[in-house]
Amino acid sequence: MKKRNRNGEIWDFEHEMPVVAGAGDVILGLDGGTTSTVCICMPIIPFSDSPSDPPPVLARAVAGCSNHNSVGEAAARETLEKVMADALLKSGSNRSAVRAVCLAVSGVNHPTDQQRILNWLRYIFPSHVGLYVQNDAVAALASGTMGKLHGCVLIAGTGTIAYGFTEDGREARAAGAGPILGDWGSGYGIAAQALTAVIKAHDGRGLETMLTSSILETLGLSSPDELIGWTYADPSWARIAALVPVVVSCAEAGDDVANRILYDSVHDLASSVKAVVQRLGLCGEDGKHSFPLVMVGGVLEANKRWDIGKEVIRCISKYYPGTIAIRPKVEPAVGAALLAWNFFMKESLRGNLS
Amino acid sequence: MKKRNRNGEIWDFEHEMPVVAGAGDVILGLDGGTTSTVCICMPIIPFSDSPSDPPPVLARAVAGCSNHNSVGEAAARETLEKVMADALLKSGSNRSAVRAVCLAVSGVNHPTDQQRILNWLRYIFPSHVGLYVQNDAVAALASGTMGKLHGCVLIAGTGTIAYGFTEDGREARAAGAGPILGDWGSGYGIAAQALTAVIKAHDGRGLETMLTSSILETLGLSSPDELIGWTYADPSWARIAALVPVVVSCAEAGDDVANRILYDSVHDLASSVKAVVQRLGLCGEDGKHSFPLVMVGGVLEANKRWDIGKEVIRCISKYYPGTIAIRPKVEPAVGAALLAWNFFMKESLRGNLS
Repeated sequence: MKKRNRNGEIWDFEHEMPVVAGAGDVILGLDGGTTSTVCICMPIIPFSDSPSDPPPVLARAVAGCSNHNSVGEAAARETLEKVMADALLKSGSNRSAVRAVCLAVSGVNHPTDQQRILNWLRYIFPSHVGLYVQNDAVAALASGTMGKLHGCVLIAGTGTIAYGFTEDGREARAAGAGPILGDWGSGYGIAAQALTAVIKAHDGRGLETMLTSSILETLGLSSPDELIGWTYADPSWARIAALVPVVVSCAEAGDDVANRILYDSVHDLASSVKAVVQRLGLCGEDGKHSFPLVMVGGVLEANKRWDIGKEVIRCISKYYPGTIAIRPKVEPAVGAALLAWNFFMKESLRGNLS
Repeated sequence: MKKRNRNGEIWDFEHEMPVVAGAGDVILGLDGGTTSTVCICMPIIPFSDSPSDPPPVLARAVAGCSNHNSVGEAAARETLEKVMADALLKSGSNRSAVRAVCLAVSGVNHPTDQQRILNWLRYIFPSHVGLYVQNDAVAALASGTMGKLHGCVLIAGTGTIAYGFTEDGREARAAGAGPILGDWGSGYGIAAQALTAVIKAHDGRGLETMLTSSILETLGLSSPDELIGWTYADPSWARIAALVPVVVSCAEAGDDVANRILYDSVHDLASSVKAVVQRLGLCGEDGKHSFPLVMVGGVLEANKRWDIGKEVIRCISKYYPGTIAIRPKVEPAVGAALLAWNFFMKESLRGNLS
């Protein structure tokens, strides 16, 4: 295979280390988030088989941020290319063994984003390799459904999004528009509302709250006035979202303001899921059909007493008794690899039938 | 006078152009905002007089942003120094004629901010010059009260803040903590909520609204999905706040969602004013004392039918019938100059008495 990319040195190992004979064909699954990027290399499974549980993983590689909105396109591409090369090298394989790649990245909000990334991937892999670009939420869904695109996924970490698919391939999303555009149930949203509550209490516009002393102590500040400088000193969303555990602790200790913020976030997260379920008709005409609801992200993980994920499930199940909540056992990058496997199988079958 | 600053060339004109004999002593007032910085040079008025209405202005100079949180300290300092030199040059004066300077800048939220700027100003002006550093809201108040620090000012432009003083010098503020920390009544807040409403309607989480077609048309976009890319492409708060007129037009055309956003902003702005009035007791014990409420900023200016400022005044007057609403006839930089004059007079009188 010719070197097709500018960063030729990334692929130098392909010449230096020939593939182990019989290593077989592989697929790559990538989960590219705002914090880190994970690439999974999986063996390709013979046509008749379903992926085993847990799916076989040949190698796993990790790199930094690959959200082009955050680090720019050139840096995002280099990160993605490096992490793929790293995973192939670790698995004793190389590009000639790759049959399919699924790249699930945050910041893919529009078909033009998808096409731009596909064009660039095609520059690295020859035309017989199946290439699939998805929003990272799709890989998160697949991580809970073993690669099947059916049901709804709710992600709530620093950001939040709900994404769903029907069995016949229709899709819908809600939220995922970032902190300026109303993702209030996210970790960032919860923490920003807690900071706002501290400022409001200090101003005399809001109730006194335990959040004041807890947040100031956590950040090593002596007055709510200093929160303004702290907040704008570094615009990273993850830095603000890191205050979520403080809010949960205050709520668990009985603080009304903190409890109100968490209940509002439960309501917001549930309303994203409901919007997706409703638009896709996942609950069927009688509202009682069963569908998987995959729950992913730090905000939805269980805490001592306040379990935001459990409250969201309770809220959704009231409307849709067929909700089957799933907390995935594998990471989203494995979901992406399973997706690549499924897409590739479908296309191969279609090829065989035609 | 020796050159005391690094940017010596800024003051070169002082050697090249001697002061016109008898030009007299002057004061400088500066209003440093996130968009621009204005410096006013006023003649100093004999001790017994009050400033005339309108106050006499010798020169006016304009420069760019001087908010150190936004452009960094070095750039902010250079802008402030240049705009002062420019105003003095235009008035045919120089630093030796300056008796007092009031620098009112946004981003002064803490006594340490104030002290840092004072230390640096002292490097430019000798010790007999009165130097005063204030939050820019204080100059806005003074622009409506002809330099008297009494009453409350509400600013609502891109950002919002309420700031008040009692006659015996106590002060209080509310809001002014920026978009992350709950300044929802601001121009930025109104526009961000409108953008959120478009996303929510598109997702199926909110009511259909006229804002969708109006905002997409204004921005030249074809789908709400494209709003995400547009929003995060440039994080400038002013760029988002520029959508306020679209929201007002939709509200005037009867759109419920737009009307709800504007009424919420009225409520938020009024609650900032109430917090300040309450904490300072500006309304007296019976709640009926009169006090000035100075209204400043684009959001509070009258529109065809929807007049946010008028609604805020109506709302405040219900609680505090002694509210005297003032829309200033002079700009905040003139307010800063009047403040410099007042501070300087007080210190001179104190000096004469002691």
